[in-house]
Amino acid sequence: MKKLSQTLLTAIEEELQHQVSRLNEEHTATYHEMLTYHMGWTGEGAGEKARGKRIRPLLLLLAASASGGDWEKALPAAAGIELIHNFSLFHDDIQDKSETRRGRPTAWKIWGIAQAINAGDGMFILANLAIGDLAKNYPADIILVGERIFQKTCLDLTRGQHLDIDYESRSDLSVGDYWTMIAGKTAALISTSMQLGALFGGANEETQNAYRDFGHYLGLAFQVQDDILGIWGDEALTGKSAASDLLEGKKSLPVLYGFEKNEEFAQRWKEGSIEEANVPKMAQLLEVEGARLKAQRQADQMTDLALKSLQMANPQDDAGDALFSLAEHLLGREA
Amino acid sequence: MKKLSQTLLTAIEEELQHQVSRLNEEHTATYHEMLTYHMGWTGEGAGEKARGKRIRPLLLLLAASASGGDWEKALPAAAGIELIHNFSLFHDDIQDKSETRRGRPTAWKIWGIAQAINAGDGMFILANLAIGDLAKNYPADIILVGERIFQKTCLDLTRGQHLDIDYESRSDLSVGDYWTMIAGKTAALISTSMQLGALFGGANEETQNAYRDFGHYLGLAFQVQDDILGIWGDEALTGKSAASDLLEGKKSLPVLYGFEKNEEFAQRWKEGSIEEANVPKMAQLLEVEGARLKAQRQADQMTDLALKSLQMANPQDDAGDALFSLAEHLLGREA
Repeated sequence: MKKLSQTLLTAIEEELQHQVSRLNEEHTATYHEMLTYHMGWTGEGAGEKARGKRIRPLLLLLAASASGGDWEKALPAAAGIELIHNFSLFHDDIQDKSETRRGRPTAWKIWGIAQAINAGDGMFILANLAIGDLAKNYPADIILVGERIFQKTCLDLTRGQHLDIDYESRSDLSVGDYWTMIAGKTAALISTSMQLGALFGGANEETQNAYRDFGHYLGLAFQVQDDILGIWGDEALTGKSAASDLLEGKKSLPVLYGFEKNEEFAQRWKEGSIEEANVPKMAQLLEVEGARLKAQRQADQMTDLALKSLQMANPQDDAGDALFSLAEHLLGREA
Repeated sequence: MKKLSQTLLTAIEEELQHQVSRLNEEHTATYHEMLTYHMGWTGEGAGEKARGKRIRPLLLLLAASASGGDWEKALPAAAGIELIHNFSLFHDDIQDKSETRRGRPTAWKIWGIAQAINAGDGMFILANLAIGDLAKNYPADIILVGERIFQKTCLDLTRGQHLDIDYESRSDLSVGDYWTMIAGKTAALISTSMQLGALFGGANEETQNAYRDFGHYLGLAFQVQDDILGIWGDEALTGKSAASDLLEGKKSLPVLYGFEKNEEFAQRWKEGSIEEANVPKMAQLLEVEGARLKAQRQADQMTDLALKSLQMANPQDDAGDALFSLAEHLLGREA
């Protein structure tokens, strides 16, 4: 099982390098370098840590294999999904003014905003070209179906991103606004990774939908868990780490429960940004007011729905085992 | 002939509105508004002037019709091309820090850089979805061929944009660098408009290539003509208009000829940015040193090649007449 995932991850990395090498041309060497740097292959600090986990393409290939298909044929789709994910990170870093990612300076810090916007655009186009490469392995009408799903998901991603940026300056947010945002920003791409894997693995529509639902709930559960750790994880509680969502004023799910409750936490939040020394007190207030428990219940419920959907999809063989084990790892993780 | 173009332009505008309406959803109304504003349909100053000329989709539909095809079937491709053009303008305005476009504040000036990057991304995705809509009118394998051409052109666009940004801060540029840059930035999309029109109009490969070449040379000729007018057009010469490329320090073709000559113009350029009062003198120097004549010869040569390619394509009927007349209008225009 571990061995299968490792084989897939190696193949994913090779396919990604093949796809990005499209940009490797004499006149635009720096443009190419911006992408290989961001992907974690070149520049200072290049290596496994700089690359990220490649979770989405791994999920896609496992779904293809667990549906009885040949994962190698689906490799360009896996690369396309990972390139879209990285395209969104590329632009996200500019939008959030983030100066580091995975311990390294972000591309816009090195090459400037103008070039970074353009290189992010290029990453998106490479994703589209990767999806087009599926034409050598599948009939044209299946590819068009896959592309449709893919492009609609990209649109959902930008909807989620629009809301995320919008929420920063808003104080009238509700828990409902939260779900709308993370459905687009976090769950859509994971959900589509699973659906495309099943589609290119040859699953029927019902099974495709079960895989898609698994991805959707996995994405939501993962995000809520991340929100909880961002406040009550070991690092966050010290208040000394950038990981503290309270310090950053992030409107995560527990914070929105605090708004809803409208007691001491909400009162203090309105008084302005939270200082480092007050982070533990604010986290405690939020917990006393029940926000942590509510968020944990949501995470548990989404986890439950995710695993039920995966059982419904009935994934087969080694890839099936690997999917269950990956899901448990992602959903049960600790700080 | 005029009547045909008018019919097409009306249909293009309707198709564009249909495609952009995909974003018209309750939670993300502002996102949708950003796009309808940029397209010139909503907000202060909305109207024909704010919309731009829609040259590229018009060329595409004329090529489809002049190849013996039904232009109505190709409408989603025309919309896709115009959306890509507008996506590039959207990001270009941020990259260049342009505060106005077509006499109105740019989107990023109104909604901020973060949201504008995202809305530009959305414009690109809408273009992809538009191309996907061709599935209702053409066989899947033809669409995949068209998409391939389309995506490769998008990559060329970003290559040209990368060079354009890069050139701003470089002083070692040659005339060769100029052609590489405008081939991607200006000619690629016009060339592809023609090729896709011919493809979806049912032309054979040889004819498609002739249309493509016409678009390529039309784009180059148009850009060189634009460069000449940017220095010796009536407005530019007064030095009082933002249209003066010399005032902006733009490395256009005549300026690069001046660099190549390396006489008084090049000397003075190196001394720092050109003040308004010196614009007429610098334009005169450049003309005396032969740059205007050289650029005009290039424009004439490209125009010649464009018209020869169009003759080779042998466009038929009203649409054919309209193509010749549009080409002459675009190539023979004055300040």
